[in-house]
Amino acid sequence: MSNQSVSAKYFPNEPQQPIVKTTSLNVSKQEIEALGKVFDSRSAYFAADYSKSIGNYIADVDGNLYLDVYAQIASIPLGYNNPALIETAKSDKMIRAIVDRPALGNFPGNDLKEICGEILKVAPKGQDKLWSGLSGADANELAFKAVFFWYQAQKRGYKTDFSREEVESVMHNQAPGSPELAILSFERAFHGRLFASGSTTCSKPIHKLDLPAFKWPKAEFPSYKYPLDENVEANKKEDERCLAIVEDLFKTWSIPIAGVLVEPIQSEGGDNHASGEFFQGLRDLTIKHGALLIMDEVQTGVGATGVMWAHERFNLQPPPDLVTFSKKFQSAGYFFHDPEIVPNFAYRQFNTWCGDPARMILAGSIGEQILKNDLVKVADRVGKYLYEKLEKLQSKYPKYLKDLRGKDRATFIAWSLESSEARNQFLNDMKKVGINIGGCAEDSVRLRPTLIFEENHADVLIEAIEKVLSKY
Amino acid sequence: MSNQSVSAKYFPNEPQQPIVKTTSLNVSKQEIEALGKVFDSRSAYFAADYSKSIGNYIADVDGNLYLDVYAQIASIPLGYNNPALIETAKSDKMIRAIVDRPALGNFPGNDLKEICGEILKVAPKGQDKLWSGLSGADANELAFKAVFFWYQAQKRGYKTDFSREEVESVMHNQAPGSPELAILSFERAFHGRLFASGSTTCSKPIHKLDLPAFKWPKAEFPSYKYPLDENVEANKKEDERCLAIVEDLFKTWSIPIAGVLVEPIQSEGGDNHASGEFFQGLRDLTIKHGALLIMDEVQTGVGATGVMWAHERFNLQPPPDLVTFSKKFQSAGYFFHDPEIVPNFAYRQFNTWCGDPARMILAGSIGEQILKNDLVKVADRVGKYLYEKLEKLQSKYPKYLKDLRGKDRATFIAWSLESSEARNQFLNDMKKVGINIGGCAEDSVRLRPTLIFEENHADVLIEAIEKVLSKY
Repeated sequence: MSNQSVSAKYFPNEPQQPIVKTTSLNVSKQEIEALGKVFDSRSAYFAADYSKSIGNYIADVDGNLYLDVYAQIASIPLGYNNPALIETAKSDKMIRAIVDRPALGNFPGNDLKEICGEILKVAPKGQDKLWSGLSGADANELAFKAVFFWYQAQKRGYKTDFSREEVESVMHNQAPGSPELAILSFERAFHGRLFASGSTTCSKPIHKLDLPAFKWPKAEFPSYKYPLDENVEANKKEDERCLAIVEDLFKTWSIPIAGVLVEPIQSEGGDNHASGEFFQGLRDLTIKHGALLIMDEVQTGVGATGVMWAHERFNLQPPPDLVTFSKKFQSAGYFFHDPEIVPNFAYRQFNTWCGDPARMILAGSIGEQILKNDLVKVADRVGKYLYEKLEKLQSKYPKYLKDLRGKDRATFIAWSLESSEARNQFLNDMKKVGINIGGCAEDSVRLRPTLIFEENHADVLIEAIEKVLSKY
Repeated sequence: MSNQSVSAKYFPNEPQQPIVKTTSLNVSKQEIEALGKVFDSRSAYFAADYSKSIGNYIADVDGNLYLDVYAQIASIPLGYNNPALIETAKSDKMIRAIVDRPALGNFPGNDLKEICGEILKVAPKGQDKLWSGLSGADANELAFKAVFFWYQAQKRGYKTDFSREEVESVMHNQAPGSPELAILSFERAFHGRLFASGSTTCSKPIHKLDLPAFKWPKAEFPSYKYPLDENVEANKKEDERCLAIVEDLFKTWSIPIAGVLVEPIQSEGGDNHASGEFFQGLRDLTIKHGALLIMDEVQTGVGATGVMWAHERFNLQPPPDLVTFSKKFQSAGYFFHDPEIVPNFAYRQFNTWCGDPARMILAGSIGEQILKNDLVKVADRVGKYLYEKLEKLQSKYPKYLKDLRGKDRATFIAWSLESSEARNQFLNDMKKVGINIGGCAEDSVRLRPTLIFEENHADVLIEAIEKVLSKY
């Protein structure tokens, strides 16, 4: 163990290797079946035992212990049973937030300013305010609301009142009170699975089938050729082609586009990367066409890509108007900076709870630990180490490590296999050698470990991949 | 203090009276202004000090202590800093749920079945399964998803696969993959403020203005004449009139209606009551027209009306298909019983977190305390006591206690004033005598105390109302 190891500091007893006791998962199967009588459990991989999970390792009820590079769909930040977070969970502040859950809009506690302040210490550059919600989908939809309020306020002059026609028509879900307005998103994007967020999601049919949707437009997101350094010109043209589609949609879509929503790296949709030039192009187009830019950092945020927020690498000028967060922050919402994104009347961006201070306190504590232990740098360092090892494996097993992506993006790494079946087989086989690992898109594998996944864990992962691939 | 008092058992030091130290709220104003720099605080009434709040009393930062009959917009169930809930908050189970937040769909903990079981101990009669979400709006939208999945599954035969046309069109937000389907709700209803839930909400324009909405229909909810026992015939005709509107919408609305969504008592919209016959009529119409019935118990549920779930009084046959919950349960989601409401494929009703086990554990603990202390009966008993006193006040101040409603509905009581201004003045004046009290609709007052609001608290409330009204 190197003396740089943060995981060893948090978890002196973290195991060195996974434990594979049984691959039949009989106890898990019984648990999942029993659970199924009261709660839809058909998507469960196994029944976990969180009391036995530690650091980067998740335990199941059959006595297995997996190295977890999926981390609850990219959301556990500092490992299981992290002692610093346990301390936060035991604090009086947390206990009050749990038992005295306030309606934050009407009766904020005198600690709310400080709770927000802790979160804002790790806000994206240029952002200094926030609004809180409850999940990534919720965060995006709250951001849509802010965008639509702003867009209409611009149209009617920021300070004026609503017309009688607006006030009457809105109660019938009709224009002009309920105007036809759109959020533009991208093919292969994932932004959540409620109805408005679902209307912007476009990665898999199963997320959306049978649900009514708003008639909102999708542009194409760049599809780069790999390796990137051998395809610079082609990928530049791809940026231009996709930006032209965005501009065309601004000009031709039948519904006015009030906002553009984009992930800095399309995650669920396949870990699709795009250049800083593409994102600056998007920023410019939103300004040209009077729309706002929402950066969805639900999966990419909080250090996962080797910077605190993935879009900070693009150095966008001006910065995005809204940046949504959830997952690794364990709390959800959006950051913003322009005071005009606060709606022009009170009670417009409002609901009973307006977020959950218990989860917000945890987010602040996560941010504190990240800063204190320089965990963004850890992720960056480990990512480089891991990527190099994966490149070596790639040259040995090119069919199973296609389009390796995420170089210099910390451990936010993905690759493709030749088919959905091959990918699923690989994920299953990895579980049998003690690695809990997830997919994205139809044929890809994504690594989403914690921020305390270090070189020793990378070695375990690489060894397991090699063990699986050597048998193919 | 009667020996029946539960509040005294939980809170031996609960104060006997509010403390009004200052009505200027200078410290609150400073706090709220400072908070406003990072978080929209314009709707804050005061900055609360939850460390000094106790039982039915909420403290502000100016040293005031209010008797709280609003309880965080109808959501605090057992008083501030309830010792039983604090014990739950300190438990290992809770701490793990906070620091190891699972993706419940993929990696449920081995305690999830038990956690759901605790919640199901207080499920509405006839319901034996649940799906969990994060807020009332979220719970309703998850219920809509279940309704649409079910509706389309019925249409294409429960077990068959999706067509190629469906799979392709859905990625463009187009039919047949994204079909035009509607949820029918009612005028004056409140079901949340996201986009689909917002499309069913119809109580105040401010909730919806400038937001795109689905073109879903609104029926009229009965408007009864009071007192009820003098207007039996007229109110029966009102039921029939409103049911005829529902039936007419089923027959004529341009979009097929897959579900009907209704509150057992319209709460935010003015505490509008309707009869069991009206609700059975609705139940019959949904069956006749092949739609599902969603009962929104977000505000009315968890003992607030003197039964565990308000719709249980209607004894509907068959029971509602889905019952949504949030607020007093501190956790959100929906109950159901028909196995066909579990979507016909896995991963359809799914998202990263699928709820929050920390909040679900708390819900179970709330349910346990309610059962153990018979708190539904307490609410019922205290409601009768309070209602009688309010009736007496009404005869003295009829202008300020119009249309008193909620007889035999525990403390779920409301009344109207002659204007919005008069109502707002009354709410403000009540704060100045130490009562935190809320409104509903434009001109009404709603009482939403905790379940441990007892006769001694009712006396304090009545005295304060009289003190305020005697000066008008």
